[in-house]
Amino acid sequence: MKFARLGDPGSEIPVVIAEDRTYDLRSVTSDVNGDFLAADPVGRTRAALDSGALPELADADARRIGSPIARPSAVICVGQNYAAHARESGAEPPTVPILFLKTPNTVVGPDDAVTIPRGSEKTDWEVELGIVIGSRAAYLDSPADSAAHIAGYVVCNDVSERAFQMEVSGGQWSKGKASFGFNPTGPWLVTPDEVDVQNLRLRSFVNGEPRQDSNTNDMIFSVAEIVHHISQYITLEPGDLVLTGTPQGVAFGGKFPYLRAGDVVEIDIEGLGGQRQEFKAWEAQA
Amino acid sequence: MKFARLGDPGSEIPVVIAEDRTYDLRSVTSDVNGDFLAADPVGRTRAALDSGALPELADADARRIGSPIARPSAVICVGQNYAAHARESGAEPPTVPILFLKTPNTVVGPDDAVTIPRGSEKTDWEVELGIVIGSRAAYLDSPADSAAHIAGYVVCNDVSERAFQMEVSGGQWSKGKASFGFNPTGPWLVTPDEVDVQNLRLRSFVNGEPRQDSNTNDMIFSVAEIVHHISQYITLEPGDLVLTGTPQGVAFGGKFPYLRAGDVVEIDIEGLGGQRQEFKAWEAQA
Repeated sequence: MKFARLGDPGSEIPVVIAEDRTYDLRSVTSDVNGDFLAADPVGRTRAALDSGALPELADADARRIGSPIARPSAVICVGQNYAAHARESGAEPPTVPILFLKTPNTVVGPDDAVTIPRGSEKTDWEVELGIVIGSRAAYLDSPADSAAHIAGYVVCNDVSERAFQMEVSGGQWSKGKASFGFNPTGPWLVTPDEVDVQNLRLRSFVNGEPRQDSNTNDMIFSVAEIVHHISQYITLEPGDLVLTGTPQGVAFGGKFPYLRAGDVVEIDIEGLGGQRQEFKAWEAQA
Repeated sequence: MKFARLGDPGSEIPVVIAEDRTYDLRSVTSDVNGDFLAADPVGRTRAALDSGALPELADADARRIGSPIARPSAVICVGQNYAAHARESGAEPPTVPILFLKTPNTVVGPDDAVTIPRGSEKTDWEVELGIVIGSRAAYLDSPADSAAHIAGYVVCNDVSERAFQMEVSGGQWSKGKASFGFNPTGPWLVTPDEVDVQNLRLRSFVNGEPRQDSNTNDMIFSVAEIVHHISQYITLEPGDLVLTGTPQGVAFGGKFPYLRAGDVVEIDIEGLGGQRQEFKAWEAQA
């Protein structure tokens, strides 16, 4: 099952996509948020679909695609979780998951334009598998317990400004990870039954040229291990978003230039859909 | 003017404290949150008080004190912002503000018990001045512009687990900063007119023994500089909370033991009130 949110920023409506048709989900929930995800979203949606209670949305293709989850309470990220990316960043692969946070106002629609921050010369892309939390998770006993707390998966672009992240931050990364709109998310929230999450190809392109091309089977820490690990330190809430790290092939590795105004980034993950963002100069926002 | 939120967790009601009396603010706002703070909270509250529209809350003293702001969208922290604390942490004073994030579910009431995380041996206290954002702030032109975006100030305890923060985190601090309840906040949100914010004594005590005792005039980066600086990298939203760093006198400095179950931490800031937390073993929560 695929959930999405369609419409202008701040007034998206929840929908479910089934057999290539898009249905208005507002009779089941006001939004795709933590409250919805914590209360049997698939069962309630399936029942509404089967009973014919959900009207098809005729103009779905004409609407902007929002993030498929409403603003989370937290966006928790794992750093350097693909061995080849750790190496291109000049680091040894980590022996424990490295966690950092983005602010929730980084989360925007998958095709929204992204503003290059004022003063930025090192804005970079990172395709990542995102985990959406379905129920509160604290002190899970083992990685095998993680699946029960996962509502689904999303495509994320963990946009990063490397000078802000590494050079003017005293070593703490969030300053370069949390500019407004630095986390295009979606197009869909895909339920776990639809994908083999540790065997998904993920790719990125800049102006049509290939950049990243890897597979989630190259993760150092698996999805199950990540959720288990975070839960030992941070209580995960329904609707929270966990980014699982990016593979090699970003500008920070030195082989490709950083993003400039007018560049177009496309990313995709097998089974989870694709994104396309035009990057804009910050002056265009002023 | 002082705002507060009183009642059980999740069902606090908004109040205003004026001339030592506590008034029910629900006819003005459903909560002390970003929407309220962005829409002339002082003017609207003053008008309601002057017209006699606000009933006095008779049982105010019998109610639990919640955080004086509803869950923020982001909690942004400045590290090592007092020179003496930077030194006790083994670091040179920073030349730029160091930013890191806590998750919003760290924010709890000022006197709520705090759970020492499972496996923790290095849980530590940090008294901090907290800034509550009143209106969206992005790319402020100068520190002089910060005041217009500040709704008020709060006392915060930036509770930290030093092994999680420094030893099993790959250098990123959030893993030791974001355990559930690690940010007791309040008792009051105090409007800026009531305090001289760069000249406030701030203190902490453990089991009645003094620990930290400093003054906000020792900050390396002032409140105005911090808000201006953050706004260059992260868009601050109404209701967001910014923690401004802690002075010397924490356990991490080596002079005092870390917290154990049964310890009581008290912190206060001149003009902003005081907090008292009992620290509990995590087993007590299970």
